[in-house]
Amino acid sequence: MIRIAVDAMGGDYAPAEIVKGAVMAARAGGIRIILVGQLDPVQAELKKHDTSGLQIECVRADDIIIEGEHPALALRKKPNASIVVATGLVKAGKADAVVSAGNTGACAASALYLLGLAEGVERPMVGGPLLGLAPRTVLLDAGANIDCRPHHLLNFAIAGTVYAQKMLGVAEPTVAVLSVGAEKGKGNELAREAYTLLEQSGLKFIGNVEGHDIAEGKANVIVCDGFVGNILVKFSEGIGSGLSRWLQSRLQGQLPTPAVDALCSDLLALTSVAEVIGGGPLWGVKGVSCVMHGRGRAEQVAGCIAQAKKAVETGLVTALNAELARAGHNTSP
Amino acid sequence: MIRIAVDAMGGDYAPAEIVKGAVMAARAGGIRIILVGQLDPVQAELKKHDTSGLQIECVRADDIIIEGEHPALALRKKPNASIVVATGLVKAGKADAVVSAGNTGACAASALYLLGLAEGVERPMVGGPLLGLAPRTVLLDAGANIDCRPHHLLNFAIAGTVYAQKMLGVAEPTVAVLSVGAEKGKGNELAREAYTLLEQSGLKFIGNVEGHDIAEGKANVIVCDGFVGNILVKFSEGIGSGLSRWLQSRLQGQLPTPAVDALCSDLLALTSVAEVIGGGPLWGVKGVSCVMHGRGRAEQVAGCIAQAKKAVETGLVTALNAELARAGHNTSP
Repeated sequence: MIRIAVDAMGGDYAPAEIVKGAVMAARAGGIRIILVGQLDPVQAELKKHDTSGLQIECVRADDIIIEGEHPALALRKKPNASIVVATGLVKAGKADAVVSAGNTGACAASALYLLGLAEGVERPMVGGPLLGLAPRTVLLDAGANIDCRPHHLLNFAIAGTVYAQKMLGVAEPTVAVLSVGAEKGKGNELAREAYTLLEQSGLKFIGNVEGHDIAEGKANVIVCDGFVGNILVKFSEGIGSGLSRWLQSRLQGQLPTPAVDALCSDLLALTSVAEVIGGGPLWGVKGVSCVMHGRGRAEQVAGCIAQAKKAVETGLVTALNAELARAGHNTSP
Repeated sequence: MIRIAVDAMGGDYAPAEIVKGAVMAARAGGIRIILVGQLDPVQAELKKHDTSGLQIECVRADDIIIEGEHPALALRKKPNASIVVATGLVKAGKADAVVSAGNTGACAASALYLLGLAEGVERPMVGGPLLGLAPRTVLLDAGANIDCRPHHLLNFAIAGTVYAQKMLGVAEPTVAVLSVGAEKGKGNELAREAYTLLEQSGLKFIGNVEGHDIAEGKANVIVCDGFVGNILVKFSEGIGSGLSRWLQSRLQGQLPTPAVDALCSDLLALTSVAEVIGGGPLWGVKGVSCVMHGRGRAEQVAGCIAQAKKAVETGLVTALNAELARAGHNTSP
């Protein structure tokens, strides 16, 4: 049985929605949930649900790292913070994965300091499927690596390839560099240099893709620096929210309300995968650490726990870290 | 009467849709159209329309610069290309503006070499409203300036401010840097340095905005390098096309076909302003040169000609170039 440590105190709707989502995930079966946080509020939330037959335990952690705190400083000041204790369970071999909707920087810092970086990696990476319109396309980095060098994009390509294989079931994922033209030589310095590096990588590199190719799912793995990736993730969320509100008002009275609601919620899912699966693994650390959107609710929490379970089952991290180490030996940054 | 030179041979649907659009624009009144291109095909297209009472003349240009040709080389090899001759009419004072849907690089190169750069500018800039969802928000650069320095972003901010004032009627446009967090200090090196420069610019700078703020129209002018801008423009077009196809199939049979079609076409317009207005001015040159999407049809051609007319009427270029020159004197790149 896979053991998932859940940071019960992290996120805009913690602990209520986190606990609710964890219970949902436990009901889906095959996992043991370890809720980490302040015992009183967590147990009070837990009592609201029927947990008979489910494997759920609580582990005490009295501190909380809130949004806006400086990650590294907070880690030092609050060794009993829920995210630190939860990640520590993975480090100690008492949990197979950690899931948190808390301060993203603190999640990454906890993973970095407690689990450690994989060989050949300088910073953890984040990313995953971006658009429901293109469910078999992974984009990274989504914001953990703002200023990048070409070898970082190579690492993103490796991470995305292993993710697409293990999590999406794509046998031979195609890889592309996000740029402003299809031809080699188009793009900024980073994109141009990454092109050359990826040509020699042994990955299934198909060249550059442009902005409109993302929604078309033209490649399974699309790499860019975290500045571009983060802006794209948020841009598509913003478009999704705006269009959803517009569609709601335009269809009011023309279709039954439940049909309109379903349509709008599907539209949101097509523009933002985060709306559906709630988050994804932090890549390049020695363990499974899944980071969620702060505003994730119970459904997203359950979705992210399911992702973490799948990552453990498929051996994502072991496979990924072996590939990253191999690439690290072949390139000199 | 404002005189617009139209490159009749440029664009995926030239000359048929270009001529049709030019006729539509002439019918809207207040302009004299100068169609530039190969006389036989252009006049053949012109004969398909009722042009009585309209001011439309043709000017001969036998060459065409096609998509994919190297702009600077093509300019040298083909001095009689339609875009060159059309831009030359502006240079010679025989037209007030030029509009083209041809090879974007060739349009920019023609403007650069024939009209010349405004003071303080190193390369022409492109941009404009990005999303119909945020019609009072201008984003630039949209792809003419791939690798940027902070003072380029200052120029984009100035150009966007003058555009928002003259073309969108916003009295005091707010300006923001596109980044990955609201706080000063967030972002890549370019965004962080541009923040400092814009703080001191005298523009109505409101700080950083993030990806989701674009659709919300959080600032009237949002600046980024042309690499990011170009990817965003195309990304939103891709999302629009994908969602439009999805909506079409989802609503089939639930609403009358014309209602579905109208909804889908509105959705496209909300995600891509280029679908509606077809293009915009090239900024930072000494004259009005409007560049269109290559796949623009008659409606977009007419829209872009109307934009060019408005740019002439409002004195956009004179005002803009004065501001750019002033900023050039105040900053040392």
